Amino acid sequence: MKQPRKRRSQKAGLPPGSLVHIGEVRTQQPSLSIMDYGAGGCVEAELPDVDALRRHPRQHEVLWVNVYGVHDPLMLGEIGRIFDLHPLVVEDILNTDQRQKVESYGTYLYLVLHRYRFNGGGQGRQLAQDQISVVIGRDFVLTFQECKAETFETVRERVRTDRGGLRRGGVDTLGYSLLDAMVDSYFGIVEELNDRADGLEDQILAGARSASLQGIHELKRCLSRLRRNLYPLREVLGSLHRDVGDFFRPEVQLYLRDVYDHTVHILESIEDLRDLTTGLLDVYLTTVSHRVNLEVRALTVVATVFLPASLIAGIFGMNFKEMPWLELPQGFYYALVLMVLVAGGMLLLFWRRRSV
Amino acid sequence: MKQPRKRRSQKAGLPPGSLVHIGEVRTQQPSLSIMDYGAGGCVEAELPDVDALRRHPRQHEVLWVNVYGVHDPLMLGEIGRIFDLHPLVVEDILNTDQRQKVESYGTYLYLVLHRYRFNGGGQGRQLAQDQISVVIGRDFVLTFQECKAETFETVRERVRTDRGGLRRGGVDTLGYSLLDAMVDSYFGIVEELNDRADGLEDQILAGARSASLQGIHELKRCLSRLRRNLYPLREVLGSLHRDVGDFFRPEVQLYLRDVYDHTVHILESIEDLRDLTTGLLDVYLTTVSHRVNLEVRALTVVATVFLPASLIAGIFGMNFKEMPWLELPQGFYYALVLMVLVAGGMLLLFWRRRSV
Amino acid sequence: MKQPRKRRSQKAGLPPGSLVHIGEVRTQQPSLSIMDYGAGGCVEAELPDVDALRRHPRQHEVLWVNVYGVHDPLMLGEIGRIFDLHPLVVEDILNTDQRQKVESYGTYLYLVLHRYRFNGGGQGRQLAQDQISVVIGRDFVLTFQECKAETFETVRERVRTDRGGLRRGGVDTLGYSLLDAMVDSYFGIVEELNDRADGLEDQILAGARSASLQGIHELKRCLSRLRRNLYPLREVLGSLHRDVGDFFRPEVQLYLRDVYDHTVHILESIEDLRDLTTGLLDVYLTTVSHRVNLEVRALTVVATVFLPASLIAGIFGMNFKEMPWLELPQGFYYALVLMVLVAGGMLLLFWRRRSV
Amino acid sequence: MKQPRKRRSQKAGLPPGSLVHIGEVRTQQPSLSIMDYGAGGCVEAELPDVDALRRHPRQHEVLWVNVYGVHDPLMLGEIGRIFDLHPLVVEDILNTDQRQKVESYGTYLYLVLHRYRFNGGGQGRQLAQDQISVVIGRDFVLTFQECKAETFETVRERVRTDRGGLRRGGVDTLGYSLLDAMVDSYFGIVEELNDRADGLEDQILAGARSASLQGIHELKRCLSRLRRNLYPLREVLGSLHRDVGDFFRPEVQLYLRDVYDHTVHILESIEDLRDLTTGLLDVYLTTVSHRVNLEVRALTVVATVFLPASLIAGIFGMNFKEMPWLELPQGFYYALVLMVLVAGGMLLLFWRRRSV
Amino acid sequence: MKQPRKRRSQKAGLPPGSLVHIGEVRTQQPSLSIMDYGAGGCVEAELPDVDALRRHPRQHEVLWVNVYGVHDPLMLGEIGRIFDLHPLVVEDILNTDQRQKVESYGTYLYLVLHRYRFNGGGQGRQLAQDQISVVIGRDFVLTFQECKAETFETVRERVRTDRGGLRRGGVDTLGYSLLDAMVDSYFGIVEELNDRADGLEDQILAGARSASLQGIHELKRCLSRLRRNLYPLREVLGSLHRDVGDFFRPEVQLYLRDVYDHTVHILESIEDLRDLTTGLLDVYLTTVSHRVNLEVRALTVVATVFLPASLIAGIFGMNFKEMPWLELPQGFYYALVLMVLVAGGMLLLFWRRRSV
Repeated sequence: MKQPRKRRSQKAGLPPGSLVHIGEVRTQQPSLSIMDYGAGGCVEAELPDVDALRRHPRQHEVLWVNVYGVHDPLMLGEIGRIFDLHPLVVEDILNTDQRQKVESYGTYLYLVLHRYRFNGGGQGRQLAQDQISVVIGRDFVLTFQECKAETFETVRERVRTDRGGLRRGGVDTLGYSLLDAMVDSYFGIVEELNDRADGLEDQILAGARSASLQGIHELKRCLSRLRRNLYPLREVLGSLHRDVGDFFRPEVQLYLRDVYDHTVHILESIEDLRDLTTGLLDVYLTTVSHRVNLEVRALTVVATVFLPASLIAGIFGMNFKEMPWLELPQGFYYALVLMVLVAGGMLLLFWRRRSV
Repeated sequence: MKQPRKRRSQKAGLPPGSLVHIGEVRTQQPSLSIMDYGAGGCVEAELPDVDALRRHPRQHEVLWVNVYGVHDPLMLGEIGRIFDLHPLVVEDILNTDQRQKVESYGTYLYLVLHRYRFNGGGQGRQLAQDQISVVIGRDFVLTFQECKAETFETVRERVRTDRGGLRRGGVDTLGYSLLDAMVDSYFGIVEELNDRADGLEDQILAGARSASLQGIHELKRCLSRLRRNLYPLREVLGSLHRDVGDFFRPEVQLYLRDVYDHTVHILESIEDLRDLTTGLLDVYLTTVSHRVNLEVRALTVVATVFLPASLIAGIFGMNFKEMPWLELPQGFYYALVLMVLVAGGMLLLFWRRRSV
Repeated sequence: MKQPRKRRSQKAGLPPGSLVHIGEVRTQQPSLSIMDYGAGGCVEAELPDVDALRRHPRQHEVLWVNVYGVHDPLMLGEIGRIFDLHPLVVEDILNTDQRQKVESYGTYLYLVLHRYRFNGGGQGRQLAQDQISVVIGRDFVLTFQECKAETFETVRERVRTDRGGLRRGGVDTLGYSLLDAMVDSYFGIVEELNDRADGLEDQILAGARSASLQGIHELKRCLSRLRRNLYPLREVLGSLHRDVGDFFRPEVQLYLRDVYDHTVHILESIEDLRDLTTGLLDVYLTTVSHRVNLEVRALTVVATVFLPASLIAGIFGMNFKEMPWLELPQGFYYALVLMVLVAGGMLLLFWRRRSV
Repeated sequence: MKQPRKRRSQKAGLPPGSLVHIGEVRTQQPSLSIMDYGAGGCVEAELPDVDALRRHPRQHEVLWVNVYGVHDPLMLGEIGRIFDLHPLVVEDILNTDQRQKVESYGTYLYLVLHRYRFNGGGQGRQLAQDQISVVIGRDFVLTFQECKAETFETVRERVRTDRGGLRRGGVDTLGYSLLDAMVDSYFGIVEELNDRADGLEDQILAGARSASLQGIHELKRCLSRLRRNLYPLREVLGSLHRDVGDFFRPEVQLYLRDVYDHTVHILESIEDLRDLTTGLLDVYLTTVSHRVNLEVRALTVVATVFLPASLIAGIFGMNFKEMPWLELPQGFYYALVLMVLVAGGMLLLFWRRRSV
Repeated sequence: MKQPRKRRSQKAGLPPGSLVHIGEVRTQQPSLSIMDYGAGGCVEAELPDVDALRRHPRQHEVLWVNVYGVHDPLMLGEIGRIFDLHPLVVEDILNTDQRQKVESYGTYLYLVLHRYRFNGGGQGRQLAQDQISVVIGRDFVLTFQECKAETFETVRERVRTDRGGLRRGGVDTLGYSLLDAMVDSYFGIVEELNDRADGLEDQILAGARSASLQGIHELKRCLSRLRRNLYPLREVLGSLHRDVGDFFRPEVQLYLRDVYDHTVHILESIEDLRDLTTGLLDVYLTTVSHRVNLEVRALTVVATVFLPASLIAGIFGMNFKEMPWLELPQGFYYALVLMVLVAGGMLLLFWRRRSV
């Protein structure tokens, strides 16, 4: 679960708007691509550098610029100048430990979103997070992603094929589609966590083992992180479909409400899972206590049976000159029977006490 | 308690309004029935397909269309077109993992509701959930249910017999009656859970057994799920009787307030049960700890009595040439008395320490 | 603590306003009495039936009708018609599992209140609840109680004797007096619960016994029920002294604020008791753990002393031909001293480890 | 911690405004004193009875009447009539189990405040509470205290010496000064509780003993009581410096804000202490569990060492005719070495298992 | 973690505005320095006393006065008079146990802020807090710090070098820069706590030891303290960027919003850490219980193996005249085989019971 944390303190003391990248470098080479589309058609291109972006002749209503890799301050500063972004926005794009938020800068909206993925395989699958910045302007949309991922691939495909009339939809429909794709990607995460929780539940109810404890602990941490991230996301979507109505036409608002509902739905699933996980910990703890009980009982039974019998054996092993039974031919068997009787009596006593 | 979860992630990436069914298919064949009624009379019919619905000549003020089975996108798309529903509404009807909600689309209200039932029998009775979509228009009411159930049968009977003047009541009275029937069905669920909790309480206070733990865990999950579902239901009903006054006449508002009160009442019962269940877990855990205590005490008593006595037996079993008492005729009995005295003394010590 | 729960589900499916009694029948025969009073005098009468009520000639400003027993739908329906009550009100009076609430119906206020009593004696005293419905009209007050109780007797006495000028006070003063009497009856409940909690605290701090656990559990359930009931009561009183100012004159409002304060005070006492009870459970659980610790320690001490000594006895009980000390006359005593030394050494070791 | 609770139930059924004292009688003889001061001077007097108060000729702007002992209904009724107080106010002054509150009666403010003190010494120091009623009129201030205490002595001294210009300040400055003195007295309480918590923390981290548990429990109860009392106090002060601006001039408002801040500060300290105390309980519980673990381990080590050795001794103590080693001269020592080896081997096994 | 607490009670009873220092004296000699800067240049000077400050001729737009050491009432009183501060402000600067807050006094803003540092090294590093008071006037900024620290050094450097155009920014930009530096200093604290939590997590999951418990306890206290301090800080920043817009120009508001976001971000990290720490305690407690279980099991195995074998040895050690096997040459080995068989059988029984 542990992810190398982003060191923010190294930036302490710099003036605001200082362009310094905070976070890991996740792609070797930042890459830049555009989609220039509208009702009339769609142009798609990989651009070699920011200059190419500057020289690109606009042909359609909407320009969508996507950047993979946010660790190059110079490049992002350039892009900021082209689209006239506030220095704080560029700073926030570079710092990949932002909260999810939406900020209106008058002529454009700036959104910070988080994306989650499970890395690795088997037991060691870990929840990894990266930050996506989205700028929605009047006739352009910028997306900045820390690393290549397929989240927006479906949207790009829909622009290419004009499915669902996305090309005629304008900037706000593209913005909505990106948000929708983001939120949809959470469903997979929740389902995987659901499966894990079910697995743990089965394990624990079948009989608690030490491994489960670590499993619960990790699940709780995942859920805690997701939950703390989803509340701001809900806020972002809530404020989008309520307050900043200017950027989204009423018909798109309706769709935003739908995305908002999905987020609430995901949050509720996560709260459910948290309840379940907490319950599992209780069950586990109680099970362990119960096991101690069973172990102690077993020990007590053993002691109850063998200690009295041993005493009797010891008694007949004493070296007194005159002792009863020793001379009898069946004395030995008398002693054995006595042992069995005493041990049995003790067990009986023990049994009755328990059932009372 | 585990129910096959609905897989939402498979829909990720589709454009909004894509009609894909999410959830299990619960009825083989969707079925379609109508009630066309008013002050003047009541026509009831099973329709073979959507075309028959389109061709149905309206005779009375209210048309109630009921559909069992929501896994046929084509059919639901058709119905959506007949009643001019927004694509998002039809999408939501198909996706059976919606939150409970109410949405106003100007000319009609769209409600998503959840219904609970206990499936199976005996210990294995499980809480099953299905989704009901209700559309309340100006002169029609549509109900979409995942599977056949008796929830609305009483309403249908009251329309047929015109009991309580339902036929003259218009669309809003029908809407209220459906909601009332839904909420009333929760009372039975709560009563069954109440009985379970009482059973568990009796079991645990009588003496905790391992089975109870699983019982508590399942009860908690049921309650957690119901509770998380009832809060949105309360919201739905609250917003109905406050905000969307246009669809419900003031005299019906009064009845809606009553349904709202019932929901709050159910919620409080569930909160009570949650408190009780949490308390039971504490009692159970404490009982288990207490039992460990008793077991250990029993063990200690056994050890305290037999170890000293065994030592004495061992001592007189040593092979020293010269030992006291060995030659005495009553030496053996002296040794036995010594054992009893020492064991008794130890017990006494033990007893006094405990009572201090 | 368990009270036979009221079965609401049996009513599912009936049209709204259906008059069916829900709850136990607590009095054999409903009884009906009136007080007709004002500045000019006071007439008090037991009425044989509803007809007598209908024929009763009003002589004074205020008519207070009190009904014991709410299981007769016909009778309550009659009374509803005489005072022109809404069908939902009569339905709610019959259903004795309402939440506490206040509803304004324009010309009268309808209040549902709960009364608590302790039934039985000694350990088995149980908290019983019954429902009181109060209707405050412009010139009449109706009170419906499930069973005979003394709660309102003091108010009746004050009307009879005109103490505190109650007769001149009008309908709102009577309404306030009834509420005040209701809320005052909670003080006794809280005091009894206080005493119980103190008793449990003394028991547990003196030394936890199993009985206390059940006591805490029952206390918690009582408190949980009371608390969940008092929040609605606080709401009722809050809305009375804020919103529905029309029914209560400003000078009476001041008194209502006082009753409201009492309710808040009771609620705080109950929250205090809940904190205390939860704390007691922690103390109990810790005490049990502590006891396990003490038991195990005792066991360890016993084993530490006797096992080594037994070993030594066993060693000198071996049958080797040549063994040291066996031939010595004091050999036996050497062995005993060795045992004491070893046991003492073990104890010392044990002691030092613990104090480290 | 337990304080004789005030019995409210005895008052149930009396008409409102009935003057009955609720609470203990804390001073034998109520005493009455006045300070009549203003910019021009200050007259201070002990008055023998209420008549003397009535006859007292006012000489300055502000009259401060202080009463110790609130159990004399007649006297308080008299004072109420002199200053024209509402009957409910006089009733509340007599009932010493009010919540802290502020009520505006148009021409005067009525405040109920709680004061805390630690009674007794050493371990047995208990938190005692008494109620102070303050009435702030246009040109008089009344303070009613259950018993003599030094809380307001500093204020009195400042009136006498005119320090800080208190005499010129008018009624509102006096009111503020009294509140400030009240709130300041809480700092001492919090500091003592802080010291206790630190003491407990040291004790528990050094090694939990049974006494600490009771200490934590008492500390929690103290904190719970204080906290539940401080929230209303914060409300009182908050509403004073926001709403009832008429009684306090803007320049005094500024000082009231300061007192409000102090209260919030105290509340935060108490919340901190609560967190700490809860944490301590967890630490204590875990420590106890840990100790059980250590004890059991010690027992296991003892059993692991001596049981196998005893078995060997027992084996060589058997009376078989032919047994190996018995005839050897060093057989005895072989047996001893075998015991040590086996015990050592068991320990080694035990050790390795633990470190795995 | 324990810090000598500031004794507030000693001030009880003094008139408001009394200048008394509360807290430790952290620097021997208060020191006073100024920066007088503007677009035109920057003058920086250490001043020997307050008189020098009074005589200082203003040359530029902004005067920033910084004071280290706040335990000299006379000096602070002087400064208060020079800048016309309200007596309550000077009192609050002296009392170093204020809550974080912002107060508007019309012509200047008064902020109380807390700074945290880790003192000492290694395990014993402790969280220390000191208070910083900031007064932002129309053309001056005053900062009062309890002790010398580097927090504002970066701001001073930026004024000297005019980096980021700070000199042209005016009073509000300086105020923002100071707040930004303060909040940035929290990032380092959070990172250190993060590292500690990770260390504890690794320790505990590897195998709980007693030391971890104290570590968790201390971490929880740190987090609890920080958290309780950050909420007021968030409020302060929230009210700055919302309400008191007069002091900050709109373009600076934007930057304040950024600082506010950082605070929320820090708070969320701390909440995350709290969740983690609480989770760790659960894991630790469960691990301890689990260990008890393992210990008891080991004990049970030992007892199960050796007690029956000892009994058999004891039986063949009895002194009966006639006993089977004793005469047989292989009798001894028969007995040994019997012991092994019985012990093995017991173990088998034990094993099967566990796996059931």
